[in-house]
Amino acid sequence: MSDQETELKLLRDQIDSIDQQIHALLNDRARCAQSVAEVKERYQGDREAVFYRPEREAQVLRRVMQRNDGPLADHEVARLFREIMSVCLALEKPMHVAFLGPEGTFTQQAASKHFGHSAHCIPFSTNDEVFREVESGGAHYGVVPIESSSEGVVTHTLDLFKRFNLKICGEVELRIHHHVLRAAEEGLDNITRIYLPQQTLSQCRSWLDTHFLSAERILVSSNAEAARMAIQHGAEAVAIASDLVADLYQLNIVARNIDDQSDNSTRYLIIGDQEVGESGHDKTSILVTVPDKAGALYELLQHFHQHKISLTGIETRPASPESPHSVFYIDFEGHAANQHIQNVLQELQSDTVELKLLGSYPVAVL
Amino acid sequence: MSDQETELKLLRDQIDSIDQQIHALLNDRARCAQSVAEVKERYQGDREAVFYRPEREAQVLRRVMQRNDGPLADHEVARLFREIMSVCLALEKPMHVAFLGPEGTFTQQAASKHFGHSAHCIPFSTNDEVFREVESGGAHYGVVPIESSSEGVVTHTLDLFKRFNLKICGEVELRIHHHVLRAAEEGLDNITRIYLPQQTLSQCRSWLDTHFLSAERILVSSNAEAARMAIQHGAEAVAIASDLVADLYQLNIVARNIDDQSDNSTRYLIIGDQEVGESGHDKTSILVTVPDKAGALYELLQHFHQHKISLTGIETRPASPESPHSVFYIDFEGHAANQHIQNVLQELQSDTVELKLLGSYPVAVL
Repeated sequence: MSDQETELKLLRDQIDSIDQQIHALLNDRARCAQSVAEVKERYQGDREAVFYRPEREAQVLRRVMQRNDGPLADHEVARLFREIMSVCLALEKPMHVAFLGPEGTFTQQAASKHFGHSAHCIPFSTNDEVFREVESGGAHYGVVPIESSSEGVVTHTLDLFKRFNLKICGEVELRIHHHVLRAAEEGLDNITRIYLPQQTLSQCRSWLDTHFLSAERILVSSNAEAARMAIQHGAEAVAIASDLVADLYQLNIVARNIDDQSDNSTRYLIIGDQEVGESGHDKTSILVTVPDKAGALYELLQHFHQHKISLTGIETRPASPESPHSVFYIDFEGHAANQHIQNVLQELQSDTVELKLLGSYPVAVL
Repeated sequence: MSDQETELKLLRDQIDSIDQQIHALLNDRARCAQSVAEVKERYQGDREAVFYRPEREAQVLRRVMQRNDGPLADHEVARLFREIMSVCLALEKPMHVAFLGPEGTFTQQAASKHFGHSAHCIPFSTNDEVFREVESGGAHYGVVPIESSSEGVVTHTLDLFKRFNLKICGEVELRIHHHVLRAAEEGLDNITRIYLPQQTLSQCRSWLDTHFLSAERILVSSNAEAARMAIQHGAEAVAIASDLVADLYQLNIVARNIDDQSDNSTRYLIIGDQEVGESGHDKTSILVTVPDKAGALYELLQHFHQHKISLTGIETRPASPESPHSVFYIDFEGHAANQHIQNVLQELQSDTVELKLLGSYPVAVL
């Protein structure tokens, strides 16, 4: 054997021995997960035991990321642990997850990111159907974008919580940022052709309307395809795509993050019929109906301010046309099981016509 | 704490301790992989070091499956190790993989199955472009179906090896089997409506033509959607979908494995410019051109028979119309580095106008 071969053999033997240890531990872990399931079933009586615990998974992943000291990147190890948990869970009870299809969309990516690749993910054509499938028990959980333009009109996912008796059990964030990529030139001058897929167009339409209303928009099948077309079609062509694509095709990024601010489609909700326990870093979502009078929103927000609770999102939702009320969707930090949050919710109740708790759930880890 | 909580806490502490050990080992493994890369670069001189070794990955996965004694299923642990290797490799050199798109197709599934989710997979619209991207060095590897009807005409992937100087570096199998699913009834009588997506239609067309030429075929967006439509549309409707879908929707399987035998689109090739070493269980693919005379094929096959080499596939390929030759694509067991196989290849050479070795590569593990 050459010196190189000897060195490599030594290292490979070491890897093989590490793999054996990992392998044994993976099966040990699976056995523990089986025991957890047995304990739950033993004590559960008639009710169906809850095997999937979003707060517990979030805690495990946060711990993984905190203690990680490399060389593997935090998010890569966390991704591996997500898969490990997914496999262990599937052993007990294969998870059925409904998502807003078709297959190959970002929502499917979000579902796999959250549940791992051992979950069975089933596409549905509307948010409505996803909710119905989860409510009827056909799927354990659903994954829906907060806002979706794929159905023609923008159906606000949040409005569905009025019709379905489901909870938010988690959130997923996909970090998709779109940039303007250009092959030959720098800057935004003399651009006549823009290559992009349909989905990207709907995510960046306002920005493009503002900056390039007269440039021709050519729809292609993927962001990678857009980059290739921009390269082929020379100096006046650009592609709209992500960092990854810019990197792969070595294109200049001439404008960054052109995604329309109003479009939150990179955030997805996990819906289910389960109340999720505290994970230590949680978020709560509520839907409140208040009398339509001056200062109503201000009064509402004062409660949060007084209790030093951070709002993470607020949106006005249309009430029915004849209604004298306003509806707000509010996200804030903290868990509804926490006394501090309960106090605020109680105060809010006195100011509102209706307060619906949509759920408390772990802040997205990955 | 209740008894249940005490028991669960004990088990969870155990899982946390196992996770810590797995985590440390994963980083140890990553460090070893880094050392392997360093050794390779040190000895490689000017040439670009080869970091990805398909034969080594196949060996690791086979060992994992052999030594696995549960409770995790063999293929699930192997999948986890695939991801672990993918993450370790990405640390050294992020792998770029071109595949026949669009995104969300089976070919993308095949690419992720083979390279894990840390590889960057980029869609291309034709097999031709995938080959060109790999030959030009834009991607390290390509993934193409053996046969694809997505381009309108059936472009035989194998014919591209005549034009591009690339090797087969591996194969991937996706086990997709289609069945006829029915909600209310058993048997194949009184079927008037068949729900299925376009891709499934092209995979099962002959069978459907033979058995249900007059039934209406309704194209839907996914196999899951087909199942839902079949349920809604009652006794005379069926869906064409997989076991998984039958299971999810609790439908009767009234005819099994209706995929057309001639369509091998569940097998995918990994193409690259690398010669792959022996893994211990390998396959070799060749393209041979023989004079177009009676008995030519028989003579060719005799060599394999005499040397007791198992053929795993053979196909006739069209030569150019004016050519007096026949072209055959042959797959057989064994690796071209093996003396036994070399002897046969030498014998074949004397009988053929041209013999092109497309590559020796590990038999699909998962």
